[in-house]
Amino acid sequence: MADAKSFKVFYFDIDGRAEVLRLILTYAGKEFEDVRLSMDKWLELKPTTPFGQVPVLEIDGKKKAQSIALAAFLAREFKLYGKDNWDALTIDTVAQLAEDLIQSYFRFLRESDPVKKEAIVTEVKTEVGPKFMGFFESLLKENGTGFFVGNDITLADIIIYDIATGFLKVTFEAIDNFPLVKKLVDTVGDNERIKKYVSDRK
Amino acid sequence: MADAKSFKVFYFDIDGRAEVLRLILTYAGKEFEDVRLSMDKWLELKPTTPFGQVPVLEIDGKKKAQSIALAAFLAREFKLYGKDNWDALTIDTVAQLAEDLIQSYFRFLRESDPVKKEAIVTEVKTEVGPKFMGFFESLLKENGTGFFVGNDITLADIIIYDIATGFLKVTFEAIDNFPLVKKLVDTVGDNERIKKYVSDRK
Repeated sequence: MADAKSFKVFYFDIDGRAEVLRLILTYAGKEFEDVRLSMDKWLELKPTTPFGQVPVLEIDGKKKAQSIALAAFLAREFKLYGKDNWDALTIDTVAQLAEDLIQSYFRFLRESDPVKKEAIVTEVKTEVGPKFMGFFESLLKENGTGFFVGNDITLADIIIYDIATGFLKVTFEAIDNFPLVKKLVDTVGDNERIKKYVSDRK
Repeated sequence: MADAKSFKVFYFDIDGRAEVLRLILTYAGKEFEDVRLSMDKWLELKPTTPFGQVPVLEIDGKKKAQSIALAAFLAREFKLYGKDNWDALTIDTVAQLAEDLIQSYFRFLRESDPVKKEAIVTEVKTEVGPKFMGFFESLLKENGTGFFVGNDITLADIIIYDIATGFLKVTFEAIDNFPLVKKLVDTVGDNERIKKYVSDRK
């Protein structure tokens, strides 16, 4: 397979579900077009998307969707998927745990009753968030290098950096109690390209 | 990496989240121990599981969790993941679409109010289900071989067979309107090993 050459991210002007794609492309040092959609532009684009949703990643002219699948595609493309099938299993496991955490937070976004909404956010901050942080901490401890697999940043580390600093930040409130997760987030944030991208973002 | 040799599935005595793992192992012609947990046995096992959840797959003595990650691991192990990164993207996309469908059905399981429960099941049958079936139908049409990628069964096909015949059957009520999905489900079900497994299951 020829390596993919051109990348175009379509999403709203927020981090959300697209940020992990932008971060992987940034970390890999790839140029990409970062299309931020107004509501008008979104309604125009929608019928041309695979499943009526963004993020969409256009890869060499082909529009593809489903953020987790796209993140894995990019990670394989840029060798951020570990050295073997066991590493890939750990990386996918982190991705799916992150997804479970995201789903528990989406219950908050979907709830219309303000009292129930408040109860969900409390549950996420005090129970669900710390539970998942504990899982990530254990996986980092098991590998023992400061990364989820091997000796360097992979997709798993970028996913945790993304949700810890982005739209799921609230679930990482207790991060000081999880020193390995905290250190990992700092390590990814200290990467030169990521640092520049994040500082230009605001 | 040495190929994984021994597999042990831990789950309750239902299809649910474990069935895709059992089906992949069956299709690949691998022996596996199929442990069906009583509630007592589950409470005993729970503290030894990675994230306090089943399914757990024990691979060469190591307990691993997160069903989608495990399904991908097995698919890579048994060459059911396509020929290149584009195929893998399509397979992961089908897996994540299936997951979105599962999540919409889980809203039904979580709802305690019987009237709201009924409304969710109607929505799943008449709107969400057919919408996703349309996505699967389009992807099958695009590949044009009767399978999601290439010319043979991969993880993507097994996932759709699983949810169309198993615990998400209700979302596939309109399957007759989606001839390519229907044909795929029949094709997977006609595989000798799958056929024997399914007929022994009841």
